[in-house]
Amino acid sequence: MLFEPQTAELRPLLRALDEFVREELYPLERPFLDHDFDVLLPAIEEKRRLAKSLGFWLPQIAAEHGGMGLSLFEHGLVSEVLGRTPLGHYALNCQAPDAGNMEILIEYGTPEQQERFLRPLLAGEVRSCFSMTEPDNPGSNPTWLSTTATKDGDDYVVSGHKWFSTGADGAAFAIVMAVTDPAASRYQRASMIIVPADTPGFHIVRNTSVMGERGQGWASHAEIRYDDCRVPQGNRLGAEGMGFVIAQQRLGPGRIHHCMRWIGICERAFDLMCRHAALRQIAPGRALAEMGQVQAWVAESRAEIDAARLLVLQTAQQIDREGAHAARDGISLIKFHVAGVLQDVLDRAIQVHGAMGMTDETPLAFWYRHERAARIYDGPDEVHKWSVAKRILGRYAS
Amino acid sequence: MLFEPQTAELRPLLRALDEFVREELYPLERPFLDHDFDVLLPAIEEKRRLAKSLGFWLPQIAAEHGGMGLSLFEHGLVSEVLGRTPLGHYALNCQAPDAGNMEILIEYGTPEQQERFLRPLLAGEVRSCFSMTEPDNPGSNPTWLSTTATKDGDDYVVSGHKWFSTGADGAAFAIVMAVTDPAASRYQRASMIIVPADTPGFHIVRNTSVMGERGQGWASHAEIRYDDCRVPQGNRLGAEGMGFVIAQQRLGPGRIHHCMRWIGICERAFDLMCRHAALRQIAPGRALAEMGQVQAWVAESRAEIDAARLLVLQTAQQIDREGAHAARDGISLIKFHVAGVLQDVLDRAIQVHGAMGMTDETPLAFWYRHERAARIYDGPDEVHKWSVAKRILGRYAS
Amino acid sequence: MLFEPQTAELRPLLRALDEFVREELYPLERPFLDHDFDVLLPAIEEKRRLAKSLGFWLPQIAAEHGGMGLSLFEHGLVSEVLGRTPLGHYALNCQAPDAGNMEILIEYGTPEQQERFLRPLLAGEVRSCFSMTEPDNPGSNPTWLSTTATKDGDDYVVSGHKWFSTGADGAAFAIVMAVTDPAASRYQRASMIIVPADTPGFHIVRNTSVMGERGQGWASHAEIRYDDCRVPQGNRLGAEGMGFVIAQQRLGPGRIHHCMRWIGICERAFDLMCRHAALRQIAPGRALAEMGQVQAWVAESRAEIDAARLLVLQTAQQIDREGAHAARDGISLIKFHVAGVLQDVLDRAIQVHGAMGMTDETPLAFWYRHERAARIYDGPDEVHKWSVAKRILGRYAS
Amino acid sequence: MLFEPQTAELRPLLRALDEFVREELYPLERPFLDHDFDVLLPAIEEKRRLAKSLGFWLPQIAAEHGGMGLSLFEHGLVSEVLGRTPLGHYALNCQAPDAGNMEILIEYGTPEQQERFLRPLLAGEVRSCFSMTEPDNPGSNPTWLSTTATKDGDDYVVSGHKWFSTGADGAAFAIVMAVTDPAASRYQRASMIIVPADTPGFHIVRNTSVMGERGQGWASHAEIRYDDCRVPQGNRLGAEGMGFVIAQQRLGPGRIHHCMRWIGICERAFDLMCRHAALRQIAPGRALAEMGQVQAWVAESRAEIDAARLLVLQTAQQIDREGAHAARDGISLIKFHVAGVLQDVLDRAIQVHGAMGMTDETPLAFWYRHERAARIYDGPDEVHKWSVAKRILGRYAS
Repeated sequence: MLFEPQTAELRPLLRALDEFVREELYPLERPFLDHDFDVLLPAIEEKRRLAKSLGFWLPQIAAEHGGMGLSLFEHGLVSEVLGRTPLGHYALNCQAPDAGNMEILIEYGTPEQQERFLRPLLAGEVRSCFSMTEPDNPGSNPTWLSTTATKDGDDYVVSGHKWFSTGADGAAFAIVMAVTDPAASRYQRASMIIVPADTPGFHIVRNTSVMGERGQGWASHAEIRYDDCRVPQGNRLGAEGMGFVIAQQRLGPGRIHHCMRWIGICERAFDLMCRHAALRQIAPGRALAEMGQVQAWVAESRAEIDAARLLVLQTAQQIDREGAHAARDGISLIKFHVAGVLQDVLDRAIQVHGAMGMTDETPLAFWYRHERAARIYDGPDEVHKWSVAKRILGRYAS
Repeated sequence: MLFEPQTAELRPLLRALDEFVREELYPLERPFLDHDFDVLLPAIEEKRRLAKSLGFWLPQIAAEHGGMGLSLFEHGLVSEVLGRTPLGHYALNCQAPDAGNMEILIEYGTPEQQERFLRPLLAGEVRSCFSMTEPDNPGSNPTWLSTTATKDGDDYVVSGHKWFSTGADGAAFAIVMAVTDPAASRYQRASMIIVPADTPGFHIVRNTSVMGERGQGWASHAEIRYDDCRVPQGNRLGAEGMGFVIAQQRLGPGRIHHCMRWIGICERAFDLMCRHAALRQIAPGRALAEMGQVQAWVAESRAEIDAARLLVLQTAQQIDREGAHAARDGISLIKFHVAGVLQDVLDRAIQVHGAMGMTDETPLAFWYRHERAARIYDGPDEVHKWSVAKRILGRYAS
Repeated sequence: MLFEPQTAELRPLLRALDEFVREELYPLERPFLDHDFDVLLPAIEEKRRLAKSLGFWLPQIAAEHGGMGLSLFEHGLVSEVLGRTPLGHYALNCQAPDAGNMEILIEYGTPEQQERFLRPLLAGEVRSCFSMTEPDNPGSNPTWLSTTATKDGDDYVVSGHKWFSTGADGAAFAIVMAVTDPAASRYQRASMIIVPADTPGFHIVRNTSVMGERGQGWASHAEIRYDDCRVPQGNRLGAEGMGFVIAQQRLGPGRIHHCMRWIGICERAFDLMCRHAALRQIAPGRALAEMGQVQAWVAESRAEIDAARLLVLQTAQQIDREGAHAARDGISLIKFHVAGVLQDVLDRAIQVHGAMGMTDETPLAFWYRHERAARIYDGPDEVHKWSVAKRILGRYAS
Repeated sequence: MLFEPQTAELRPLLRALDEFVREELYPLERPFLDHDFDVLLPAIEEKRRLAKSLGFWLPQIAAEHGGMGLSLFEHGLVSEVLGRTPLGHYALNCQAPDAGNMEILIEYGTPEQQERFLRPLLAGEVRSCFSMTEPDNPGSNPTWLSTTATKDGDDYVVSGHKWFSTGADGAAFAIVMAVTDPAASRYQRASMIIVPADTPGFHIVRNTSVMGERGQGWASHAEIRYDDCRVPQGNRLGAEGMGFVIAQQRLGPGRIHHCMRWIGICERAFDLMCRHAALRQIAPGRALAEMGQVQAWVAESRAEIDAARLLVLQTAQQIDREGAHAARDGISLIKFHVAGVLQDVLDRAIQVHGAMGMTDETPLAFWYRHERAARIYDGPDEVHKWSVAKRILGRYAS
């Protein structure tokens, strides 16, 4: 009811999407959890084509680039629907890390870069990856990088070691964060360089085993060695030294994308929890739903999800109106707050399911293990708390 | 920024109120915490007169009754400002339990009742109390009452034992919940009867000692014996047996009033916490604000308050638009959720203040001990969780 | 230092075991996390032979049966050491579910049953499984079973559907909980029947996919159909209708075995957390260990593990002295309490490791996902809380 | 059952003490909560005389000084019994701050000091206070002090501002922490000086209002100004500059005394919670004890208290055997851990009592508000976590 004026006209779209997600994507969940990603790829690609034919494609991308042109606020509502299933965003080609890469290619890409890298990405013909985190340096301190891009003639020679490059397996290119000027000030040291996957020296060491799974294709996190990868200087995004500025711009909305998706996961987990509690009998004629502890979890989860959702939507609205910089407190707040709600809701939903909650009969166990990373990726909780608190407390110190 | 269209025109009022609260009421806090209420009364009454003269009076009451005619949503924003100090609502004559009593007298009072009881209440000439909770019956089960009102000629004879009748000490009258028909169905058993304090048999046993304080006047919670109090049947509010319907109607918005006030308390506690952390040195030149744990509390509190606040405002808006019945899930959710946030924020603010947090140098310790009741009064957490979960789970059971 | 008199003479054994675990088993962890269990089996079996040759074998089994004859209290201390690695208990042939099966075969097995089933189990020549949980009935209510064992001539015909039969894949036999007399009182309805895996009608439907892994061999949880499995009545353990009595006897110490193992996991997680925090730099020259939040987690974990450990040891001591029935409150208390500590400690250890905590570079992610079940198996938290509270509160009611 | 050998011979004493506490002290609770301390003093002093006549006096003081000569471990068990009521320790003359003052007077006092100050303290003829915390300096950093003791002839002239000097109101003397050599190294800067209350310049500004109460006599926390208080140098305890060493020695066991007392409070709160839950009806014939949430609190509290208690006893045992320095990790761990358990248990007990939990009908509300300080006094949680973690992590850093 809140936001009603803003959401009224979006409602038919949300309803149609909801049906698409339930009818077309839910049936893919068990196969997705059971099989290697590539085995499932043909079926998923068919859903993508169907989505595209229904006009569900690139929701957050401007119409001029072939997207639906939604505001961040509107995309938030869409993301809630898509987030209910692990393949939702992929089906509309707005999955991480490609969505973020599209955004910076649109913002900073030269016409040549856009033609070569952005166009096929938007079309869903290729995938990409974002190569920033390094195994030997803490992700919590993004200015501390060992990977370098050294100028040599008209080229950069990229050299370094990355991991957690999501979806690198099978990607057409990587956007690599590399130090271009070690002598520059901390935030101007690095640039973003596009490295096509067929560049000599681009070497996927392995897909890292994460929570017991190496994964495959989009559903994987690669460790990559860049062994003197030579690419033209024209592959740099933006001006030299702008790496952090672009990263910040990419990560701000990226974080909110995650939060929106997490709200969708919460809603699905809540729905599964309630359904199971209402239908599962703990004694003949006595439903699990009658247990006081289960009732408490249902009520607490409902309150926490509703409150978190409003905070996410408010932040999205602020970004739409005032930009990501003005909303940076809000972005940090929702990043850790919603991740915490997500973890609690998933934990309760699993507990309500008992042994079944441990199995892959539902997507709960998948989210439980893989979204544990929600409190880590794109800045661990502690870093966001520190950064927002520092700004708040700074205002009192003067 | 959210709700901006709705709040824009309210902003000048909120700013003026904020100034009133800081300039006029903050200085009364230390005396309020240090002295019996009656000692302070003259000073407080002066602030009331000043507030009234500034047009700050009865914010939630319709203009035709001399109030500011704010919607519940608008009153929520006002309450946030007033809630920052323990005397805020009193200063504008919108304190519990009088505010709720005004509302039911407006809704259900006959012209005679309004003239005799409502008018002086609105004018701030008298105070009232609401006499529902009984020491021998659980407040969590409001249908279980021992107090009776027996018809005798044209009168009711009210007989029973109540406690936690807030502000009964010095009140002009009590609105008493009493069983009028023990044989009726559970929710039609009781009626609300106005019992003037000078009725023979109206006996304040004592002000109950609550968290070490018996209190006085408005700031007290009385134990009352109704020993065959004879009042005319014309003192009944609404039709016979409507007690619960009226109570429900009174408590719904009453709960949201509390939540709005709690958000105000949270904001004040947050402000005190940040200020102390920023200014307190834990070693020469090293502020408390530099401690990671303090930063985490600041960030977590900010996120929790912001999210809870939006949930309260959304619920207020829903009540304004659709009525309290439609919003009853939301009312239950915010009742326990915001009470929980309140307790956590107060706890952190006290911990940051160290020994000073235990003292009455700030209002934190007052709220810490007295607002522990936030999780109990108007329905303990557990009852609200149970009732909202039952409705949610019921939808899945069919 | 507490328990010193009791532990002094055990110390050389614990030290030797500790060395065995570090030197021989830690190196198997990465392969274990990376490969199917059967691939690793030869290497594991070699460690088993080594352990046996060192006298580390069947710690909790009486010497007359070839074990080390430790008391439960002593086994607790051994379990702490073994629990530090996922293969610790397996290496000494005291892993679930075989350990529990050995215990009931010793207690209730006829000489024939012991010769045929117990002897090879003790020798480590075969594995077994325990088949109790049913997909269609809640594990939290163990008296509600659909599997039946019907007498037919000298045989039982076992028919039913089970899941979470750990280690059924490759097991030589199952101990099956089945209803032998549906008309009997609730706790005398069922019996335990030994069903060899080569019995016609014994059908492993699949290893259930648990947290993304179907597993293999011992490291799996099977769904089993018993399609009219005919076994001699001589395969019944104990008298007819004693199923629950035996289950209770099996599960009591079984629960404490788990708790002891969890303490070992906690210690390892604590060790990994501290090591990583001390060595990981978050900025040049600045270790993660300097962060206030990390310090808080270290201190809180230390206190929680130490306190939980003492509670486990006290309970073990009580079982040794007074039997499992007298200690049933303590058993329930540690079951949920230690499981909660385990989950919190693992969560913090992962958070401290950042992205690496999500990977299988350490055993943390393995425990995080699979020991989520600690709060579910052998009675979910809620059931243990309910059962112990009922007993405590019952004493006040009279 | 644990510690049985150690506790067996103490059991008759504990049983007798338990009876004394229930019969003699419980009846004083309501008056204590209702009246100024001095009003109650005659009744309390009578109980003291009775306790003394029964041999219950100075449990932790050596027999040569007229005490019962219990080890710290034994005193822990006694403290659990005494802690069940707010007057327990006072009745046996082992209340803070006098107990700690006795200990340092025994350890460091000259014969003259012992004769003049210690003897009447042990006899219960006078009370004392410990004057360390300063309003302008953080209690968390005890080396940062502004109060000075300047030598002048044979005297010290003590000058400064203290607060939270518990029991200063009516005390015969204060032990004051004051800087004697500002130029010395941080931990050798201060000394402890005995300042009799009748010294000119000793000025109790006020009893600080703590949680709404200024209190009186022993039950108060004074703000004191030392305006050039001249005392002989012979009033210094120990050598000059030993202030911190003595404070540390005083606070170590002092912290464990608190923890033991808190366990007693927990046990009483648990008992009150269970009793109320079992007897309170929430509907006719339906006890509060049947609610799942109440059962969960009972079980969780039982587990947490039991585990915390063992940790306290283990630490006491270690101090007895190896001294406070060797046990300093344990002391820090229990200080914050038990304080946390205490707060949670009190919170649950109040919630179970509903409105009555807010009143002074039980001692719960007293403890809830005043023992909030448990997480602050003698070192806030954060300082203890930091200090123990630093030591643990330091071992990994090398």
